[in-house]
This record gives sequence, C-alpha cells and structure tokens, in this order.
Amino acid sequence: MNIKDTTQFIQPFGVDIDLENGIMHNPTNHLVRNASDMLGYYENEDALQQLIEAESNPLHYEVFEVPVPEEYGHLMYCISTLQPGKVGDEYYMTKGHYHTILETGEIYLCLKGEGYMMMKTPDGEWKAEKMMKGRMVYVPPYWAHRSINTGNVPLISFCVYPGDAGHNYGDISEEGFPARIFYKDEKIVIEEA
Amino acid sequence: MNIKDTTQFIQPFGVDIDLENGIMHNPTNHLVRNASDMLGYYENEDALQQLIEAESNPLHYEVFEVPVPEEYGHLMYCISTLQPGKVGDEYYMTKGHYHTILETGEIYLCLKGEGYMMMKTPDGEWKAEKMMKGRMVYVPPYWAHRSINTGNVPLISFCVYPGDAGHNYGDISEEGFPARIFYKDEKIVIEEA
Repeated sequence: MNIKDTTQFIQPFGVDIDLENGIMHNPTNHLVRNASDMLGYYENEDALQQLIEAESNPLHYEVFEVPVPEEYGHLMYCISTLQPGKVGDEYYMTKGHYHTILETGEIYLCLKGEGYMMMKTPDGEWKAEKMMKGRMVYVPPYWAHRSINTGNVPLISFCVYPGDAGHNYGDISEEGFPARIFYKDEKIVIEEA
Repeated sequence: MNIKDTTQFIQPFGVDIDLENGIMHNPTNHLVRNASDMLGYYENEDALQQLIEAESNPLHYEVFEVPVPEEYGHLMYCISTLQPGKVGDEYYMTKGHYHTILETGEIYLCLKGEGYMMMKTPDGEWKAEKMMKGRMVYVPPYWAHRSINTGNVPLISFCVYPGDAGHNYGDISEEGFPARIFYKDEKIVIEEA
C-alpha cells in the first residue's frame, strides 16, 4: 500500500445522536432557521409575515453537525430536523441547495416523520421522492434538494455528503424549485409553479 | 453554473429499509457471510471449525446495498447486520477492509445492538470505538475497519462511503488487526495481539 505521512491520519471518533428527537449531542455546528429566515421562499409571503408576528417567529428547522475536513475522501454528515407546519397552504420546507461541486450527491436516511425530498437539475427537470421512517433518498450528483414536511411531527433525517461538496444556496434561491407542496381540499398536493 | 450534458444526470430514487431488523427491501446486492467464510480470521480456529459443524455453518453477517455508479461524487451505502455470537471466547466480527483508495473514509450509524468498530492505520496504530443505537462512528481516511458484536442482538449499522472508494480485503487479512475482543471472566475484554 501507499502509506502517507502519518501526520495525515486523523483520529476516529463517535458522535451520539438522539434518533427519536433529531438532536446531535454536543454538535460543533448548530444551524437554526426561524420563519424570518425564510422570507422569499414561500408562495404566500403575507402568510409568512403573519406567521412571524402571530407566533413570535417560530422555529423552522435545525441542522446539527460535527464537521470534518472539507476535503476529498472525508464525509460530511448532519442531522436535519424540520418542524411540522404550514405557511398559508404550503408545507414547511428547507431553503434547499446545490452543492458547490455539482458532481457530488447526498444521502438522506429518514428517521422520523413524513414528507418529500424535492429535487431539481440545473436545466429544470424535477422530482419529488417520498420520505418516511426507514426510507433512504438518494440525491444524485447535480440535483438541488430541499426537504418538505407534510406530517404532524418533525421530519428527521441523517444526511451524508462528500467532504469537498460545499453548499450553494444562491443559485437555487434565484431559480426556485419548479414545484411546491400544499395542503388543499384535505389532500397533499404537488403543484408545478 | 457549469451544466454538463444532461445524459449525465441519473434519476433520484428511494430505498426502503427495515431499521429494526436490519433489512434493505429489494436490495440489488445481498452479501451473506457464514461461519465458514471466516476461516483464518479468529484466534481460535478449532472453535470456528466446531461451530461450523455443531451449528450447521451459522450465519455471521449480511450486507445489503443498492449500488450507484462507482465514481467520484456518488455515495455508496449499505445496511450491515452482524449476528450476535462467539467463536470460542471471541465475539463475532466482520472480516474488515481498507478502501482501495486509502484516502477515503466511511460513516457508520448504529441503528441497533452493541459492539465496537475496530480500526487500524497501515502503520499499525489502532482504536476501538463503541457502537450502540444512535452512535455514529467516523472511520477517517486511511483506517481499516471491522465491526464486532458484543451484544445479544444483531448489530445493525447504516454505512456510507464515497462511490470511488472500493474495497481492499486482502491487505488487512494478511496484516490482521492489532487487537481482538473477547468475553473473559464475565467481562468484555479488548486484548492486543
């Protein structure tokens, strides 16, 4: 084997995760998005403003991670916990992102809740994959992705992506996703924009 | 963004996993290792031979996967289910492997059971990380790794590694791991070889 300088070996470690409540204990990074962080993302901006005022800017989603080197060969991972709720008729969702290195995919293992992974390619093709406990969704390279909670409990996923992938939130926030998910006429409805 | 030829886009998909029983439904690959596949791996070869005869070559472990392209940017994933049991005093374990591309790591999220992830670098440093439900073990680039079941139920893990990593079982089977895990004097004991 090709053995490199041993100073390159980083030490193994373990991270404790509460799979039931979607919490990573002692995370190094804890990203919190409240309703006010989602301005511009939902179809009904007035409903979002009302929600922020009426419910004191409620929690939208959290991402917990213990980062590793952002390099080829490492694997970044996180717990994503998206609250249940609606903005007008539209189900709570994450902002969504492409990876900075477009040629990198991501794996979501759903641990709790119900919803969809909404995905799109840079040329506008889209697909929504169902998420539920025990379902793993494969987000292939090139697909932007956002999770959407259509259930009554938090949608909890364990996510893994290549260490060098990076996040690109800007492009998808300008493009938007081609479809949205609503609760209308007592049904979950996926509507093209 | 740099948009490649859209024929390169593979479609998203979902895979259903029984998190409680460690089974991937409709896997494309289902690797099964029985006791007879483990000849040469345990300290007490006679005990392994007796086990094979007395218990009709019992199941050792299974790996379920739905493969993706073995290329940079993709993520391979699997469910690994290791049965409880002992060969003599030594707990059931997997063969263990390096990745063909040494500079690639692996993530194990333990979903059920109790045990250890035994790891070693090519220059002989080793570390054992505890596995239990909700504990994620980070196997950094360069570390060979094997799981060991010290509990009474199957040790079930969800694993993710880079698509281009590859498996190298040969080197570690010649080197062996520097430590083994036994049940002695009513305790779990980690012994250096």
